[in-house]
Amino acid sequence: MDELRLGIAGLGTVGSGVVRLVQQQADLLAARAGMPVRITSVSAHSRTKNRSVKLDGYSWAEHPLELAKDKSVDAVVELIGGAEGMALELCRLALKNGKHVITANKAMIAQHGHELAKLAEKHQVALRFEAAVAGAIPILSVLREGLAANRISRVAGILNGTCNFMLTSMEKSGQPFEVILREAQDLGFAEADPSFDIDGIDSAHKLAILASLAFGAQVDFDHVEVEGIRRITPQDIDYAKSLGFHIKLLGIAEWIEDRLSQRVHPFLVGTNQPMGKVSAEYNAVEVLSHAAGPMFIEGRGAGGDATASAVMADVVAIARGHHLYPFGLPADKLATPAIFPAADRVASCYIRFRVVDRPGVLAAISDVFYRHNVSVKACIQHSYKPAEPVDVVIVVHPVREGSLSQALTRIGQLDFCLDEPLMLRIADL
Amino acid sequence: MDELRLGIAGLGTVGSGVVRLVQQQADLLAARAGMPVRITSVSAHSRTKNRSVKLDGYSWAEHPLELAKDKSVDAVVELIGGAEGMALELCRLALKNGKHVITANKAMIAQHGHELAKLAEKHQVALRFEAAVAGAIPILSVLREGLAANRISRVAGILNGTCNFMLTSMEKSGQPFEVILREAQDLGFAEADPSFDIDGIDSAHKLAILASLAFGAQVDFDHVEVEGIRRITPQDIDYAKSLGFHIKLLGIAEWIEDRLSQRVHPFLVGTNQPMGKVSAEYNAVEVLSHAAGPMFIEGRGAGGDATASAVMADVVAIARGHHLYPFGLPADKLATPAIFPAADRVASCYIRFRVVDRPGVLAAISDVFYRHNVSVKACIQHSYKPAEPVDVVIVVHPVREGSLSQALTRIGQLDFCLDEPLMLRIADL
Repeated sequence: MDELRLGIAGLGTVGSGVVRLVQQQADLLAARAGMPVRITSVSAHSRTKNRSVKLDGYSWAEHPLELAKDKSVDAVVELIGGAEGMALELCRLALKNGKHVITANKAMIAQHGHELAKLAEKHQVALRFEAAVAGAIPILSVLREGLAANRISRVAGILNGTCNFMLTSMEKSGQPFEVILREAQDLGFAEADPSFDIDGIDSAHKLAILASLAFGAQVDFDHVEVEGIRRITPQDIDYAKSLGFHIKLLGIAEWIEDRLSQRVHPFLVGTNQPMGKVSAEYNAVEVLSHAAGPMFIEGRGAGGDATASAVMADVVAIARGHHLYPFGLPADKLATPAIFPAADRVASCYIRFRVVDRPGVLAAISDVFYRHNVSVKACIQHSYKPAEPVDVVIVVHPVREGSLSQALTRIGQLDFCLDEPLMLRIADL
Repeated sequence: MDELRLGIAGLGTVGSGVVRLVQQQADLLAARAGMPVRITSVSAHSRTKNRSVKLDGYSWAEHPLELAKDKSVDAVVELIGGAEGMALELCRLALKNGKHVITANKAMIAQHGHELAKLAEKHQVALRFEAAVAGAIPILSVLREGLAANRISRVAGILNGTCNFMLTSMEKSGQPFEVILREAQDLGFAEADPSFDIDGIDSAHKLAILASLAFGAQVDFDHVEVEGIRRITPQDIDYAKSLGFHIKLLGIAEWIEDRLSQRVHPFLVGTNQPMGKVSAEYNAVEVLSHAAGPMFIEGRGAGGDATASAVMADVVAIARGHHLYPFGLPADKLATPAIFPAADRVASCYIRFRVVDRPGVLAAISDVFYRHNVSVKACIQHSYKPAEPVDVVIVVHPVREGSLSQALTRIGQLDFCLDEPLMLRIADL
């Protein structure tokens, strides 16, 4: 191979960023890659759309699948998105046809990564997806290569720029969730249909990929517990702050008693911890490993150029002949660990009750906690106006989540409770 | 190659850590590397010394150079240390004999890296030194691979665990430098001869290596400006804190007007910045690049296991056949950029004068500043006891360092100045 020829499928923000990097950094890329890197074909929904980059000299594939058959393409860069459909079809066909695949598609890798990795291994081509997790941060390479000799016990991260942007904005402005969401949409930080982001699904896709690489296990998206940020109010952010915490949507994958736990939840994170200080659309990942110790990486989690930077790191590695197993180990050697039951996890938690303002409420809550062996550490009661609902916030000492959950169900049934209690875990980073 | 056979030269903390990782993580390493990784020979100063690892089954080389000639060794792991002498001789011979070399030796790479890289390229073997910079943090791989498509404009870091440990301890305890140094020596965080660490030379070695990889330039240790932390007092740390800063020994390499600037200085770093919060023996590196944006990585900068983790990342990469140019580009393509003159750099600075307590001192200092176009931003005057010397601390607006230096020389000559004014730059991270 004396040059690497790319076929780009999808010319949105990331695709345009890739085209721009290849055009503007041609010399640097050739030097680093040891050979010229060239785009030969592109494909996108609309040929006539006004784009920030020139496409002269590239052949235009009317259908993305043409790229997988194109003899002038060595590596397909899949930037279409979506767990199934065209993206998956393209990647399957490209791998079968002996073409390398680079993708930023976390949904597809989280749900079909194992199948695709087997295909890549069978056809002895690369399948790389650095851009699928944490934008510009080369976290997959750190896990797979930089920490190759380590037993990793936990990976935790702020993996969704939209949610972090919204939580940071909410903290700054004190505006309610709906207003912040509209703002984020206007600024281009949230999609028209924001549910993948704000319901934690996007973070869960990324976490499943991180967990697979960190623990040498088959990617297992179905066992990620997922909870988003819709129920977080500016008041919660204020209460948390008065207790010394920020609220962050974290993905945490950890190895507990030889079993795997994967979850995405809004957490309380200490204001003094590096993870607590990650603001706006930034992402961050903390890895705990037996020899290297704790490691923390923060960087741009979104944006065309940042994601394109990760895509191109994969492209350069392929040009240099660095063929790794997609998930760090041969696909048939990836473990299928048992799942640690959520109910058995132990955590210190924040609970916010919205209740009727009348005597005896705190006593009733305390009584249920007492009977479920839940020990109260701190309490804030906040009333806005007389005769209006009151927020009662309770922080409990480390408790089995199953016991706490039973207590909360019981309390939620009491007549003074105006809605389901909000429970947020305190991150033990 | 169906296995990778290592010869380890040097069995101190890092060497023992490497032996331990190879022994304890044999299965993991074999899976990640795609072949067994095995130690065949070792060599160290004393054969009889009590070590934390067993050496049974390894052949003992009476002289390190034997490892470079040993037919049962594919890769030499050099952990002897020292810029020249045995370490350099061993690496040269090993490369010439077609053996890969992995080293943690920053002094040698900073001063002879270019020569060794040419040798490695000529003999088509790997020369890797991830462990030479920032301990467990895989920063060289991030620069060379993760950011392969980026134009990097600045690399800044806390690169010496000893200095950061001492500055953090000084801030906590308020004890003077000499006491803190003795404590650090007792705890094993500082060498008996601490000058390489506290005079900034170790940081300068690491910075020169980072700069080479970041800017595609020949490693140029001779042009790193170096200043250590000997003159920092607990009072300076207090004054800085009252102004909103921590004092940190930083290495900064940056590209200014097409020229390279490399320096190691104690800097004032904002208490809210990630770099300001790096405490104890931790290291951290911030990279600014055109597509990926800012990226910050913090991790263990020292310790046998953390450094061994980085050594083994290189070993695994070699087993996988990832032969990169040692400095990311072919040695003969590395640039030799012009040096940006220190005097032309512009920075906001902190200056501490120790002066006789008498009227007119501040007026005299201000007058010299005025005549040199140095604009004062803030001033603290602190007297301890009547008739004792007084600290006058002045923060100046961004100023050409050459002009400030002239003003300080002039002020230092005035009769009320009891010692040379201490000038610390404020980091613009």
